[in-house]
Amino acid sequence: MIAAELPNLIRKKQSYLCVGLDPDPEKLPSSIPRTAKGYSRFCIEIIEATEQYAVSYKINTAFFERLGSEGWKAMEVVFKTLQSKSVFTIADSKRADIGNTSKQYAEAFFKTLNADALTLAPYMGQDSIAPFLLYEDKTAIILALTSNPGHSDFELLELKNGKQLYQQVIETALNWERKGELMFVVGATRVSEITSIRTICPDSFLLVPGIGTQGGNLEEVSKFGMNTSIGLIVNASRSILYAEGPGHYIENAAIEANKIQLQMANYIK
Amino acid sequence: MIAAELPNLIRKKQSYLCVGLDPDPEKLPSSIPRTAKGYSRFCIEIIEATEQYAVSYKINTAFFERLGSEGWKAMEVVFKTLQSKSVFTIADSKRADIGNTSKQYAEAFFKTLNADALTLAPYMGQDSIAPFLLYEDKTAIILALTSNPGHSDFELLELKNGKQLYQQVIETALNWERKGELMFVVGATRVSEITSIRTICPDSFLLVPGIGTQGGNLEEVSKFGMNTSIGLIVNASRSILYAEGPGHYIENAAIEANKIQLQMANYIK
Repeated sequence: MIAAELPNLIRKKQSYLCVGLDPDPEKLPSSIPRTAKGYSRFCIEIIEATEQYAVSYKINTAFFERLGSEGWKAMEVVFKTLQSKSVFTIADSKRADIGNTSKQYAEAFFKTLNADALTLAPYMGQDSIAPFLLYEDKTAIILALTSNPGHSDFELLELKNGKQLYQQVIETALNWERKGELMFVVGATRVSEITSIRTICPDSFLLVPGIGTQGGNLEEVSKFGMNTSIGLIVNASRSILYAEGPGHYIENAAIEANKIQLQMANYIK
Repeated sequence: MIAAELPNLIRKKQSYLCVGLDPDPEKLPSSIPRTAKGYSRFCIEIIEATEQYAVSYKINTAFFERLGSEGWKAMEVVFKTLQSKSVFTIADSKRADIGNTSKQYAEAFFKTLNADALTLAPYMGQDSIAPFLLYEDKTAIILALTSNPGHSDFELLELKNGKQLYQQVIETALNWERKGELMFVVGATRVSEITSIRTICPDSFLLVPGIGTQGGNLEEVSKFGMNTSIGLIVNASRSILYAEGPGHYIENAAIEANKIQLQMANYIK
């Protein structure tokens, strides 16, 4: 689906939940084989258990690449499953390279895998992102402020012009020519910064990781991050995939996703 | 092979040439099928034609990912071929993510593919790079100053402390704890900056792309970038893979690689 359909889908499902699919061999239920087929089976089970509560799925490419070409094949199976659903599919790939190479990545993710969106690292600048912005029906999601401890090393650096690097990244990227959609990754661990980000990009959708295991706070993120088109996709990965609970892991995942969805319904005006 | 063996190999082969393997469907010889098998066949032919002139090969993952899991399988075949040679193998992957995800990427490239090194984007900071630095026999190559036009967007930004972002990236990364080797990507298009980089990291190996098609100047890069352990790996991709000449493409590639190697021999003291 295209990004422009997200606000309607969010209102319909009363949810802006993105379920992050990170099949981690150290955390998977013991009944799941640590193989590519085990990974895709687990992801599909999670998708089917949570799809009524989620508008988006984010596939973390690293966990599949770990198994080489077999893992990549499993990722293709998961994307194929997602394409039969009305959900916004994100390849969490953190790519970007010189222009001619980014063009290949754009084909890999937008054509071969047919993802609706992918995440991109902005370090190399405009021509490393431009090939992804040529796809009318696709979305480039640029890292702005991430939720990991290392974000203070470079993202928060103060520039001579008084801005912080992540603020400059958003400002600069908004000026790039584009045919497709542009979103930003904004970590939920520092909510004060979401307010400042909203003054720079009031209209953009933000992909917010870090709810759940990484410690973000859904209420504050929603209060300060929402705009008139909702403008938020909030991701939860481990807290859903490996939810503790009385039932089978599939039920536990559904219960946890439902819990987040109900909370979100409260924040949707 | 481990990075510590590079200086000896460079002196023995009188070359610090890295051949970049970017099987571009728009530029491949017409006799090569545009399939995963065509890609691996072409790369292996290039490796065999140039190995006497090169100390390293850099596989550009994007060109393989473009073909999905089949492309990834072809990449595995190319890495396997390289592992039977005495050369330093680099996955040009530009990865990095939050710590637990980077751990998966490290396994993907250092274990599953068994590359000697991979390239990394520094935007997300220390914990996004740390998992790659835990491998004693492997090398993390961090983007510092790249050779693409977009490098001025963020890499050259002046910080409040007077440094440019890429200088800060090198300084900060040199302070990170590590067991393995650390190198930096330094684009060859602005040689004046290599001098300044050498004052920040006199001892590090630099991976220099941009010789040939991207317009770098080998003589200046060597004059200003070399240290007592040579400290340079200079990459050429398109100028070798798609060399024009009187012969078959394999011969043309060998002639071009030999030409660069002979030039390099002049600069090695």
